[in-house]
Amino acid sequence: MADDNTKQRGRSVVSKAVSLLDAFSLTAPELSLNELAQRTELPLSTAYRLASELVDWGGLERADGAGYRIGLRLWEIGSLSQRATTVRDVALPFMQDLFLATEENVHLAILNGQEALYVEKITGRRSVRVKSRRGGHLPLHATGVGKVLLAYAPPELFDQLVQAGLKRHTPRTIVAPGQLHRALEEVRQTGVAYAREELTPGVLSVAAPVFDAKEQVIAAMAVVLHSTRADLKRLAPAVRCAAISTSRSLREHPLAMNDLAS
Amino acid sequence: MADDNTKQRGRSVVSKAVSLLDAFSLTAPELSLNELAQRTELPLSTAYRLASELVDWGGLERADGAGYRIGLRLWEIGSLSQRATTVRDVALPFMQDLFLATEENVHLAILNGQEALYVEKITGRRSVRVKSRRGGHLPLHATGVGKVLLAYAPPELFDQLVQAGLKRHTPRTIVAPGQLHRALEEVRQTGVAYAREELTPGVLSVAAPVFDAKEQVIAAMAVVLHSTRADLKRLAPAVRCAAISTSRSLREHPLAMNDLAS
Repeated sequence: MADDNTKQRGRSVVSKAVSLLDAFSLTAPELSLNELAQRTELPLSTAYRLASELVDWGGLERADGAGYRIGLRLWEIGSLSQRATTVRDVALPFMQDLFLATEENVHLAILNGQEALYVEKITGRRSVRVKSRRGGHLPLHATGVGKVLLAYAPPELFDQLVQAGLKRHTPRTIVAPGQLHRALEEVRQTGVAYAREELTPGVLSVAAPVFDAKEQVIAAMAVVLHSTRADLKRLAPAVRCAAISTSRSLREHPLAMNDLAS
Repeated sequence: MADDNTKQRGRSVVSKAVSLLDAFSLTAPELSLNELAQRTELPLSTAYRLASELVDWGGLERADGAGYRIGLRLWEIGSLSQRATTVRDVALPFMQDLFLATEENVHLAILNGQEALYVEKITGRRSVRVKSRRGGHLPLHATGVGKVLLAYAPPELFDQLVQAGLKRHTPRTIVAPGQLHRALEEVRQTGVAYAREELTPGVLSVAAPVFDAKEQVIAAMAVVLHSTRADLKRLAPAVRCAAISTSRSLREHPLAMNDLAS
């Protein structure tokens, strides 16, 4: 077999197949067979054989050119992820209401490893263009939703982030651990997090925690807007209100997922 | 090996692993190991071994009970599916605008096999509860978006649906092929499709086609509302307008996906 060399020994077929899927990203939504083989460190023949099986299944699709891309079947199955979709489905009407009230970007993010994963994003034609994308990650210390998620996470996470180094994204990013620590303490006291041009110049956000039925923070909701339109303190009650409504809805309907599937 | 029996012979490891993922659905978001083994016709030991590999990867997660569910990693990767997300991302602001204007459910669906696949759904607190769910399928002949997708699909699809039999969902479902044929002809002439309590009693919809840069219909957008609030003909221009705006945006930005990833 082509893959019977030292590097491949010990890798299972499943781990090879999923490494093909892992090769794709927001910045690389389409890959040629060569690129796939390179990124997965698989022999070309193995990459081709496994990619063909994934195409047969629908998890990969042939792109218009010569390459491959993620297939519709994976999107369908991924939509079943309860961690991403339960809170999203319960939150969506309240996010809509918040959007109706503000006409600004409304974001929902959950904690994923050491980053904020954006599970939903409501945006209007006049909303400011921002870096976040549904399915994308942004740093915890430089975003409103990230500060909320970090403030209510186990303290080890803060230590890990500090140890890895707080990356500066703009002149206003908080990179001093002590300053971030105080900011998070304020988030816990007030139930609101602000980010002021800390990731992108000209962009501000107000975020609030969403609690599940066990009173654990499972998500953060935020309004994200252009600095010229900003009156952050005035927006805070609206964001908190929508987050609290979502929390209450999750508490009242702990099986919301199944309920919504009807 | 436990899976070295007649039934398993000829099934590759990849096909066995993806059959575990395929076992989950909107109505079965959580499955025990026994259920997984049964649904995939795999020996318990094989199902366990492959499920464990998928858990290590993040494609499956242990549920709170003893079972498994689809993992966050699959949701992340699925979000990269361009067929589901490109048109969704471009359409979303216009769907928002349509929601702002109507405060009713706004749906976006694409053709997937012989059904309509719902890729996005905007809903407010006062919107009527409907059967559709993001990631879910509904029949083409009984929904507004379905009629649009069917009207612009190759004629073979119509023949296949008729041959399979047009299922009656309510007393008002169109089940006569001739009647459906005439309805689709009208959709092509007017650019609008109506569904009047044809899937769910009390629910109406108005749908319009979304065209890609090659002037092919790639999606259908609809407003779905309660029959007591309905003035379908009055809503049609708003739905068409949002669909046309989306089509223009897709035409102007054929690489919208990459653009939005920035």
